[in-house]
Amino acid sequence: MNGEVVVLRYGHRTVRDERITSHCCLVARAFGAGKIIVEGFEDEELKRTVGSVNKNWGRGVRLEFTEHWKPVLKKYKKLGYKVVHTTMYGLPLQDNIAKIRTWKKVLLVIGSQKVEKEVYEMSDMNISITLQPHSEVAALAIFLHEYFGRKELGKIFPGAKLNIMPQKSGKKIEGHKKFSDK
Amino acid sequence: MNGEVVVLRYGHRTVRDERITSHCCLVARAFGAGKIIVEGFEDEELKRTVGSVNKNWGRGVRLEFTEHWKPVLKKYKKLGYKVVHTTMYGLPLQDNIAKIRTWKKVLLVIGSQKVEKEVYEMSDMNISITLQPHSEVAALAIFLHEYFGRKELGKIFPGAKLNIMPQKSGKKIEGHKKFSDK
Repeated sequence: MNGEVVVLRYGHRTVRDERITSHCCLVARAFGAGKIIVEGFEDEELKRTVGSVNKNWGRGVRLEFTEHWKPVLKKYKKLGYKVVHTTMYGLPLQDNIAKIRTWKKVLLVIGSQKVEKEVYEMSDMNISITLQPHSEVAALAIFLHEYFGRKELGKIFPGAKLNIMPQKSGKKIEGHKKFSDK
Repeated sequence: MNGEVVVLRYGHRTVRDERITSHCCLVARAFGAGKIIVEGFEDEELKRTVGSVNKNWGRGVRLEFTEHWKPVLKKYKKLGYKVVHTTMYGLPLQDNIAKIRTWKKVLLVIGSQKVEKEVYEMSDMNISITLQPHSEVAALAIFLHEYFGRKELGKIFPGAKLNIMPQKSGKKIEGHKKFSDK
């Protein structure tokens, strides 16, 4: 897989966001991002979730926290990352993904409904994934899927205790003592 | 867009699922599904959310509820729909999407962690979108994106009160009296 993506989850402030942020972390991992930085409080449950998935299913995304998005954005810009912000108000993904793919280091900002104007201004590109309201979880998945050109679907995670053997029906997991069909 | 997709959201049972189910509904709409059927209690807040988005942003997905998934699955099979179930234990999407695209009517079942064995058995295809744990919101988005071959990204929603004019930075909405740059 060409390129490296760090995800910045803007505005994880309340308990209301917990499950959505958890889905964001798992999607970042499954679809090949190297790191996700969560803005907001250091969420112990989130740490446990990501830690446990990495332990069982192989080393994937790293999880970090930040008190404020802005120092992160500035730091990654200095490190040569291009900042892409997903928003329903931005330029269509399908018209701009070819250009974005030439950027080998991307900081992807995923927000919620209220994102400060400065995020728009400091981003190298604001992109829309459909012009409709939907979900940062979906936006993240579609971005990574398009950026990695589908290759992420077959990504191998090193050090996995458990590996799935794809089945027509039922479940088969390598690494379990007994295979379950349920 | 070729083909028709009805989404069946399995197991929306608790308050814990509310925001995730809400994201599923909005993703179903934004990515071109015709209908989403939620298994579980008739959630008034969900109705308001979907109703309001359809009113403001154009007619999209229809929302229905069911007490149990099985009669829905049987009904749609009789109507000629093929049943596709997304599960991390299934056959890889990338190897099977070409075949699924030949199916012009699809009932897509999206679950949570615990899905009954019978869902696997009654499905025409169990497919995995990565072999990793992640999110039904992401699985739904990627499935629709692959099924509609990216065309859903430009889908027009009839009767919209509000339309976004894509911008390099900031926000522009047609249908608002004043354009806002924030």
